[in-house]
Amino acid sequence: MSERIRMAHGSGGRLMHRLIEEVFLPRFGAPAVGAGDDAAEFHAGAGRYAFTTDSFVVQPLFFPGGDIGRLAVCGTVNDLAAKGARAEHLSAAFVLEEGLPLELLERVADSMAQAAREAELKIVTGDTKVVERGGADGLFVATSGLGRIADGVDVSGAHARAGDAVILSGTVAEHGVAVMNARQDLRLGGAELRSDCAPLGGMTAAALAAVPGAHALRDPTRGGVATALVEIARQSGVRIILDERAIPLREPVRSACELLGIDPLYVASEGRMLALVPGAVSERFLSALRAHPLGRDAAVIGRVEEGPPGVTLRTSIGGQRPVIMLEGDPLPRIC
Amino acid sequence: MSERIRMAHGSGGRLMHRLIEEVFLPRFGAPAVGAGDDAAEFHAGAGRYAFTTDSFVVQPLFFPGGDIGRLAVCGTVNDLAAKGARAEHLSAAFVLEEGLPLELLERVADSMAQAAREAELKIVTGDTKVVERGGADGLFVATSGLGRIADGVDVSGAHARAGDAVILSGTVAEHGVAVMNARQDLRLGGAELRSDCAPLGGMTAAALAAVPGAHALRDPTRGGVATALVEIARQSGVRIILDERAIPLREPVRSACELLGIDPLYVASEGRMLALVPGAVSERFLSALRAHPLGRDAAVIGRVEEGPPGVTLRTSIGGQRPVIMLEGDPLPRIC
Repeated sequence: MSERIRMAHGSGGRLMHRLIEEVFLPRFGAPAVGAGDDAAEFHAGAGRYAFTTDSFVVQPLFFPGGDIGRLAVCGTVNDLAAKGARAEHLSAAFVLEEGLPLELLERVADSMAQAAREAELKIVTGDTKVVERGGADGLFVATSGLGRIADGVDVSGAHARAGDAVILSGTVAEHGVAVMNARQDLRLGGAELRSDCAPLGGMTAAALAAVPGAHALRDPTRGGVATALVEIARQSGVRIILDERAIPLREPVRSACELLGIDPLYVASEGRMLALVPGAVSERFLSALRAHPLGRDAAVIGRVEEGPPGVTLRTSIGGQRPVIMLEGDPLPRIC
Repeated sequence: MSERIRMAHGSGGRLMHRLIEEVFLPRFGAPAVGAGDDAAEFHAGAGRYAFTTDSFVVQPLFFPGGDIGRLAVCGTVNDLAAKGARAEHLSAAFVLEEGLPLELLERVADSMAQAAREAELKIVTGDTKVVERGGADGLFVATSGLGRIADGVDVSGAHARAGDAVILSGTVAEHGVAVMNARQDLRLGGAELRSDCAPLGGMTAAALAAVPGAHALRDPTRGGVATALVEIARQSGVRIILDERAIPLREPVRSACELLGIDPLYVASEGRMLALVPGAVSERFLSALRAHPLGRDAAVIGRVEEGPPGVTLRTSIGGQRPVIMLEGDPLPRIC
């Protein structure tokens, strides 16, 4: 039987990278700049702009800490932020299932508008399609975004270098665990398990402006911190050493992951940014992140070394283990 | 019972306009320039750019003359062309149903790549999500596009003026009828019923460059020529008089519409452009369109007059009837 699409093709992990490398890149070509990053870069006049897109299929549509609308705006804002760009213009393309209560669409639109205000951007163009009952799960939305890259900023997953510090802007795994908890009605952790979903353009721009010279940024969404850092290690041809004890993790999230049997390093955040910055400026970059409300739990979680491309985890009991890209998909449809 | 989404909310007609006016615009705000057009306009450096998005849910995925991939690229190219812009950068965000044969995704990607070559643009960024079997109909794709607006060009649905000629670049209704024929396996017209799906950026740019001064462009997709012209009449506050006999319509399409009991004026084209241009240059604009292979059947199909905003059809037997926006959706999921 010929190969078929599996849930894991959407996980952000190994199978999704195979799709990109074997189906899309050979046909569409790699972008001239920033191949492997979550946003493409292009020139317009004297400026450099970033352009990105994401589709959102999260279930349930509403979850503690957010909903599909907030997620769609923040996801696109954060992909642009990871290129050093502030989102300016967003588009939203909806696929609605026949029978969807109009009131629900209104709530999603309210939430998108609220997130757009927080991110100081405008949703300027859109589209709506409707499919028959059973043709889609309620509501999907694809957002695309455009933003100008700040002058002097040149970040890419391919720019990490030995000597960089690996900084994470806050606690991990909160989005994925909150959505899974809501979907399965697991009732873990009560009100404490909330998505971290937030627009990071302001925090990232402030840190980049205060401390120039960051090499790489990435928001650890699908596949989590582990997969994001494996991607960067491969793009840059470096070894990343992660210190497990340094990774910020809230207790209710840690115990939920333990009960679910999943590694928080592979669980999506939607309001966190990874930054790889030269060691010499890492403390200042950290302080700049911590000065922002969305970055107050920022921490140095590792460092970049010469060595075969990949990621090594120093575990809390002093061992070492290789960190690989996500295989399979323990938490499908979390974005 | 509270109001629910109906198929007609995706038709391009009256209910979709209500969604835009009552749900989206109050929350997202109208774009600063070009409200009511299919692409938003923004400035970057000294240039003006157009930005647009569309989601595609056509069933079947493959139909005579095209497929969902070709349609997605052409639809976005043509929305940009209708703002006087050549598409330069495209994004593609997929939602795939678990179990979809990988080979089918490859064929769709092949077709997108082919259409991108024809339109001389690059697909620079993308995203893939997967939903469980039954969570989506095989494959949806949302494309967004960016293109620079040619210097000196200022077209908008709001710029039509009394004295303009209404030009259509070719025969009507071919896309919608071809998709419906394929979906229902009606076997009307045999191989003669093919979608007109084509990227119009080159044709439109050539005509705008040869004959400056066009007022409005629009590709008559969902809702057809009738709905597109009602939109323009309202945006511009003018009366449009259509001459039924002048509207190019191929015989197999005419008889298929008759058998299906639908009015070809409401059936989507995906490779045609409407142009409203001052009467003084209309013959030259028509010649410029006809000089392009995709515009060889171009014709003047009406004119713009002062009067209460709306569209009047002069029928082939000499009568007159008001043309209203599409109600309901006789041909759902044709794009």
